[in-house]
Amino acid sequence: MTVLSGISSRWAQLTHANVVVEFIDVTLRGCAQVMFQNNPLTGLIFFIAIFIAAYGEGNPAAAYGCVLGTVVATLAGLSLPDRKAWLAGLYGYNGCLVGVALPTFLVMTPMVWGCIVIGSLVAVIATVCIADILKTWKIAALTAPFVLTTWVILLASYAFSDLHSSGLPSPALPHSEVGEVALAWMGTALYASIFHGISQVYLFSSVIAGILFVIGLAVSSLWAAVFAVAGSLLALLTASLLSANGLSIEAGLYSFSAVLTAIALGSTFNQPSWRVLAYTLIGVVFTVFVQGAMNTLLAPIGIPTLTMPFVLASWLFLVPNQDVMPPHRQA
Amino acid sequence: MTVLSGISSRWAQLTHANVVVEFIDVTLRGCAQVMFQNNPLTGLIFFIAIFIAAYGEGNPAAAYGCVLGTVVATLAGLSLPDRKAWLAGLYGYNGCLVGVALPTFLVMTPMVWGCIVIGSLVAVIATVCIADILKTWKIAALTAPFVLTTWVILLASYAFSDLHSSGLPSPALPHSEVGEVALAWMGTALYASIFHGISQVYLFSSVIAGILFVIGLAVSSLWAAVFAVAGSLLALLTASLLSANGLSIEAGLYSFSAVLTAIALGSTFNQPSWRVLAYTLIGVVFTVFVQGAMNTLLAPIGIPTLTMPFVLASWLFLVPNQDVMPPHRQA
Amino acid sequence: MTVLSGISSRWAQLTHANVVVEFIDVTLRGCAQVMFQNNPLTGLIFFIAIFIAAYGEGNPAAAYGCVLGTVVATLAGLSLPDRKAWLAGLYGYNGCLVGVALPTFLVMTPMVWGCIVIGSLVAVIATVCIADILKTWKIAALTAPFVLTTWVILLASYAFSDLHSSGLPSPALPHSEVGEVALAWMGTALYASIFHGISQVYLFSSVIAGILFVIGLAVSSLWAAVFAVAGSLLALLTASLLSANGLSIEAGLYSFSAVLTAIALGSTFNQPSWRVLAYTLIGVVFTVFVQGAMNTLLAPIGIPTLTMPFVLASWLFLVPNQDVMPPHRQA
Repeated sequence: MTVLSGISSRWAQLTHANVVVEFIDVTLRGCAQVMFQNNPLTGLIFFIAIFIAAYGEGNPAAAYGCVLGTVVATLAGLSLPDRKAWLAGLYGYNGCLVGVALPTFLVMTPMVWGCIVIGSLVAVIATVCIADILKTWKIAALTAPFVLTTWVILLASYAFSDLHSSGLPSPALPHSEVGEVALAWMGTALYASIFHGISQVYLFSSVIAGILFVIGLAVSSLWAAVFAVAGSLLALLTASLLSANGLSIEAGLYSFSAVLTAIALGSTFNQPSWRVLAYTLIGVVFTVFVQGAMNTLLAPIGIPTLTMPFVLASWLFLVPNQDVMPPHRQA
Repeated sequence: MTVLSGISSRWAQLTHANVVVEFIDVTLRGCAQVMFQNNPLTGLIFFIAIFIAAYGEGNPAAAYGCVLGTVVATLAGLSLPDRKAWLAGLYGYNGCLVGVALPTFLVMTPMVWGCIVIGSLVAVIATVCIADILKTWKIAALTAPFVLTTWVILLASYAFSDLHSSGLPSPALPHSEVGEVALAWMGTALYASIFHGISQVYLFSSVIAGILFVIGLAVSSLWAAVFAVAGSLLALLTASLLSANGLSIEAGLYSFSAVLTAIALGSTFNQPSWRVLAYTLIGVVFTVFVQGAMNTLLAPIGIPTLTMPFVLASWLFLVPNQDVMPPHRQA
Repeated sequence: MTVLSGISSRWAQLTHANVVVEFIDVTLRGCAQVMFQNNPLTGLIFFIAIFIAAYGEGNPAAAYGCVLGTVVATLAGLSLPDRKAWLAGLYGYNGCLVGVALPTFLVMTPMVWGCIVIGSLVAVIATVCIADILKTWKIAALTAPFVLTTWVILLASYAFSDLHSSGLPSPALPHSEVGEVALAWMGTALYASIFHGISQVYLFSSVIAGILFVIGLAVSSLWAAVFAVAGSLLALLTASLLSANGLSIEAGLYSFSAVLTAIALGSTFNQPSWRVLAYTLIGVVFTVFVQGAMNTLLAPIGIPTLTMPFVLASWLFLVPNQDVMPPHRQA
């Protein structure tokens, strides 16, 4: 750890001395802020995880798109007056996710690279807009700017014949999931599924990336890492108990929003305590319900939920914070 | 009435002396608050109506679920700092409705009883959340916490094979209602339909329950009872004039939201006057349009509107209250 | 221009002397406010354009409905305390659009004329409601009251067999637009399409009406006229580049929301500058994406987007105004 803190203070000096290093620092923090961490080393580890996962799934464009989106959004943030938010990477994380999401769901063409640029610009405007609206109730924008911007582009892809789906769900009326032995998979796959759930925050289904994300979190906040793993496990158990689709559970699709809810409620916006733990537990379980609900809600229009279940569940649990939590527990 | 007020003051003494009696008192008020009444006797009469209707329709779980939901929500409300809101039953009414709604639309299993508990807990958090947001514009949460929480669970039931629909509408693209002689039913059935509309506030289609709800209202506020009956009648006439589906009109499905709008605009948040009467009249008629619109809107995702048409129409008409009503008319 | 200003000052005298002339003045301003102009002459030219277009498309009811809606809404506005807003026509423009939209999408019957009256009344209440909510963030209601009120009536038309669709899109699951040579039309039709895009703000596809709307704008604000034409052109190019449906582009259906975004961001709520120009450009391009997205979003429920893409995109870009624009640039 002494080595780490040595490197860390050397890096801090460099960022003050050199605007290029500063820009790299803020871009890395942008990537880390997807999981609420204001730490360039976390961002570096996250980017490594993203490249490994993207190449592993044969879709390197997702990694390069991620870099492009974070850089464009961070550049755009330079023109805004709130320097403190910029330095913390708070203008970068939504562009970061736009850059991963578009190559995941659309066939990459020059037009889609252009969409990443426009989407990342709009995501910055949306970040300011939503933050302005939500400060009335003292809550954060979370990943809502990413979700709304990406939804617009993905929905528009049906109307624009130059944007082609590569992974969008086909529009269909919802039908009831047929009961199957969802618990069967749990023996061997539990361990893998926990990390799938974590790496799905960045839309990948990769054990090694999931482990790297946990390490990246731990570098910045041990509690965040603990809540990420526990949140993923709890979501898996809840979805299994309710007999959700086994393949979806296994791929982490019922966990990624719950992972973010767990980190947000458990460690970012509250300080860990028994009361916070109980509150977070209800929040994580309810996030799984919201995930199932939004899968149904969006079925007819053929777009994925992205991290909206996390956003909605967390807003629901964060607005009452001032009434529910003792004053010194509020972030 | 002297007998009633004697019992009433004796009861008030008991609630101060005994925490169990107090808890029962607050639970009863929770049930009464669904129709905006802060009165334990009203709540008692409402619970009786609910048991009669639930057994009459062969679905007693709806009545026991209602008690469970109100009790869980009232218990959860104990942990919140706003004691005055708790005493008025304002944390109980959304759980009360969650407890009726889930057994109405889902096959009862131990899992669904668990969903009533989680749903009632989340409804309390949603009550605080929505009230916090809406106090910016000085309007109340109404039944929005119930509707949103229940929608999440009902939508999720499509994704979770351990939750089975027993009464959810099948997801379908909307199609135009075929013109039929909707007015034909009105001769004999008008009287029954008025009370169906009132009992549908609690999701039942029962004349005797409807009459008991009106009596329960009258015990607390004569104006509320008058507006409930008049609202139900006006909604029936509006829906008939527009030729909505005859069976739906007859079952009270175009009236229950209008009943709540009539009580809310006419007697709860305004004091009766000619100006208020005209405003309420437009509000009730528009609620019928919102009911028809939401039936179409939700058709593809296979969930019922619940009382959302009332919530939306009432918010629309209550926000401008300070501009539209003279100061002394505002509640 | 001296003649014009002579007429103008004579007219101003008349409006002060005669309540009927004043009412006509405010009604004309109501029509002009659809495109943000507080000018009775603009309103007169707009009404002329509307009559020409409505008769030209064989649907005169759209023109008479437009007059009826504006008059009813202006009358209803008389009962509200904000006299300044009333005089500027700010209670009239949503009723004006309700009156055009209902005859465009529904078969005209006495019932639908009644719906125009109710819809215009509710649009005034919605205007006060939404303005009250949005003043928290210092943004305007734009045409949201019109869109929401009209959506409710159009959605309800599926449930009420006395309301018949004459032009509603059939509810259908979204499917990907098949690639066609969208750019082929652009040679000869470009000029016509620019004006179609402007006249589609009032739901018409008429070159002559489009030209009259531009003249009406120019009478009040040259910048508004310039931004309307430039916005329509930019939207056409964006939609063509993305290969949207050629017939829709040609009819101006990808442009009308962008026209309003261009006027709003470029000239109404900001003063023209290079920074504003860049911001408006991104806003107009993104409005085209929102238009495509909402076409997909609304496909299953069979209603048109109306001007909601403009409303959403403009709110998104107007909320951050105080952070993004230098103070003296804010309207």
